[in-house]
Amino acid sequence: MSVTTPAGFEAAGVAVGLKSTGARDVAVVVNRGPLKVGAAVFTSNRAKANPILWSEQVVKDGVVEAVVLNSGGANCFTGSFGFQTTHQTAERAAELLGVGAGDVVVCSTGLIGTGDEAFRAKVLDGVDKGVASLSTEGGEDASLAIMTTDSRPKRAAHAGAGWSIGGMAKGAGMLAPGLATMLVVLTTDVVLDAGEADAALRAATRTSFDRLDSDGCMSTNDQVTLMVSGASGIRVDADEFATALAGVCDDLAAQLQGDAEGASHDITIRVTNAATEDDAVEVGRSVARNNLFKAAIFGNDPNWGRVLAAIGTTDAAFDPYDVDVWMNGVRVCTAGGPDRPREDVDLTPRATDLVIDLRVGEATATIRTNDLTHDYVHENSAYSS
Amino acid sequence: MSVTTPAGFEAAGVAVGLKSTGARDVAVVVNRGPLKVGAAVFTSNRAKANPILWSEQVVKDGVVEAVVLNSGGANCFTGSFGFQTTHQTAERAAELLGVGAGDVVVCSTGLIGTGDEAFRAKVLDGVDKGVASLSTEGGEDASLAIMTTDSRPKRAAHAGAGWSIGGMAKGAGMLAPGLATMLVVLTTDVVLDAGEADAALRAATRTSFDRLDSDGCMSTNDQVTLMVSGASGIRVDADEFATALAGVCDDLAAQLQGDAEGASHDITIRVTNAATEDDAVEVGRSVARNNLFKAAIFGNDPNWGRVLAAIGTTDAAFDPYDVDVWMNGVRVCTAGGPDRPREDVDLTPRATDLVIDLRVGEATATIRTNDLTHDYVHENSAYSS
Repeated sequence: MSVTTPAGFEAAGVAVGLKSTGARDVAVVVNRGPLKVGAAVFTSNRAKANPILWSEQVVKDGVVEAVVLNSGGANCFTGSFGFQTTHQTAERAAELLGVGAGDVVVCSTGLIGTGDEAFRAKVLDGVDKGVASLSTEGGEDASLAIMTTDSRPKRAAHAGAGWSIGGMAKGAGMLAPGLATMLVVLTTDVVLDAGEADAALRAATRTSFDRLDSDGCMSTNDQVTLMVSGASGIRVDADEFATALAGVCDDLAAQLQGDAEGASHDITIRVTNAATEDDAVEVGRSVARNNLFKAAIFGNDPNWGRVLAAIGTTDAAFDPYDVDVWMNGVRVCTAGGPDRPREDVDLTPRATDLVIDLRVGEATATIRTNDLTHDYVHENSAYSS
Repeated sequence: MSVTTPAGFEAAGVAVGLKSTGARDVAVVVNRGPLKVGAAVFTSNRAKANPILWSEQVVKDGVVEAVVLNSGGANCFTGSFGFQTTHQTAERAAELLGVGAGDVVVCSTGLIGTGDEAFRAKVLDGVDKGVASLSTEGGEDASLAIMTTDSRPKRAAHAGAGWSIGGMAKGAGMLAPGLATMLVVLTTDVVLDAGEADAALRAATRTSFDRLDSDGCMSTNDQVTLMVSGASGIRVDADEFATALAGVCDDLAAQLQGDAEGASHDITIRVTNAATEDDAVEVGRSVARNNLFKAAIFGNDPNWGRVLAAIGTTDAAFDPYDVDVWMNGVRVCTAGGPDRPREDVDLTPRATDLVIDLRVGEATATIRTNDLTHDYVHENSAYSS
């Protein structure tokens, strides 16, 4: 269950010293075809890392031959030297693979401002070793090589009738809208053209990674890349493929949420009966980014007042005095006042279910987030990322 | 140095059992005139507490006779019973003072959803005792009565030539834009009409309380009230008064920042050379709300990459690759790359100075915030507010 689950893909994960621990730190994923279709979505942050600036150009023609990913340095705000590093990474991989450099996507993750000559030498070494180690069994190694503060690798797959989708992800903090410090590679052996791949990828990320908002912070390096080999020779109904791809993305998003830095609760915020889906997303996100609410959940305190205070900052259509709030199945607030007592709510499980019923329409959205904990503060004050 | 510093004001702070500690918990501030001019600004949160709903109506005619404030309960989302409590509070004070209830502002702070019969009885008892204790020396007691998690009272004053301004504030968390869990009462004995008072108050809060963004969370109960007695008989130049009032507000805002829940750094974010003041505020606020940056400062880590990642999420006019970032006097980032080494930055002092030079225009704004600490998480997970 990895990026090498679908036919037509090879991958590798190697160690070249970017991580001080000696763990794997460069991954290569190659599409052996026959199709070389690719699509990608990127961070919406205007502060873009060099690999983003490069890869945005690569995917424009809908062709992606390979993805090179490194941990141990974000290569962001490292000047023209840093951009040249990304360029050389793609050129080295292209030369070894016998493809064009303009079809090689590059992804980096780590500390912003890191990308000196030693970094470049190690990444290029990683390309050499990675290409030399490529294998149809290499998906698991690749998923290990992209980990940073992740406590475990994230992999997912979908098995269709004679076709499949595989995926890997990394990310344990800065999970936010418009994607966020996540690197994701998705592979499939179905037959798709570039337009279909792009549409399916955008639809799948919109309701999964885009709605994972661990701490409201948006990264400079996020990228989700889909590569299509067509090696199964099977054309799949567009809706069926879109649903399957969304399922794989949702699975990976849940794994990212479950491994968010320092979190002790995985909070699912379901906003129901909104006037529009955009309203539902805005309301859910306002709660996902409310430090006071998130600290209360860490303290197992069903503090619904902080939910109302958060959603009151939005422009969504609703009457603050006609909203129902449910926590773990208990309605704690209705019609602008308290309902069942706080003591009825058991917040000890890690999985936390918050429902906000806006009572104005029929639209719904789900936002995933985490609580705000001592460990979150510790990890993000002690670890430079 | 308090709300009773200017001539024409009396105040009191009494204990009626709203606080379990037995500390003072109801404050009354009365304007003895001859003018009874008042102005106020309120939270921009759509989820408004009952005292906000009431007081918004009170100040519409520019007349305020008195302000009653209680800690120990926000009286927010407490239904129609809660609104009646606020109404009865104003009526009781009005009856005892011989004024109209429609000229009595009410402010509450504490846990949302708290406002039962016992709460009402205590607040009304507080009005009785408060009015009975009114004195021209009562400003300090009043400032004690409005404290919640504040570790110390906040008071400020400005002495003009024969006139003065006094003020008190409470607030130690949820300090955010459009004001935030703060209750502030300002008094002055200059001669002003209602329009002048309103204009001066809005101008003063816009650059002080509105730019204090401790944790990005906006309260349901915030209110800043200015009362004008005219007792000095002196008319002051509008600019001179506006500057003096802004100075008192800035002093109180700095005290609120310095006492923010659990903070170990007071961070002053100065955005310079922006295209517009709005751009400067947006950029500053994006950093003030970035948990990763705030956790880094707690860890004394001059992580400028997180500053760039934060400002990259804004729509302000600037080129992310042509921005300078200074921390405590050291330029750590210039032109999209690292400048002086991180080791040169000393972040051990509590006062932290961040300068973001956007290099596109001439506008400037300063946003105050705090770091994200273990104590913040502890206080907000263990204390229901």
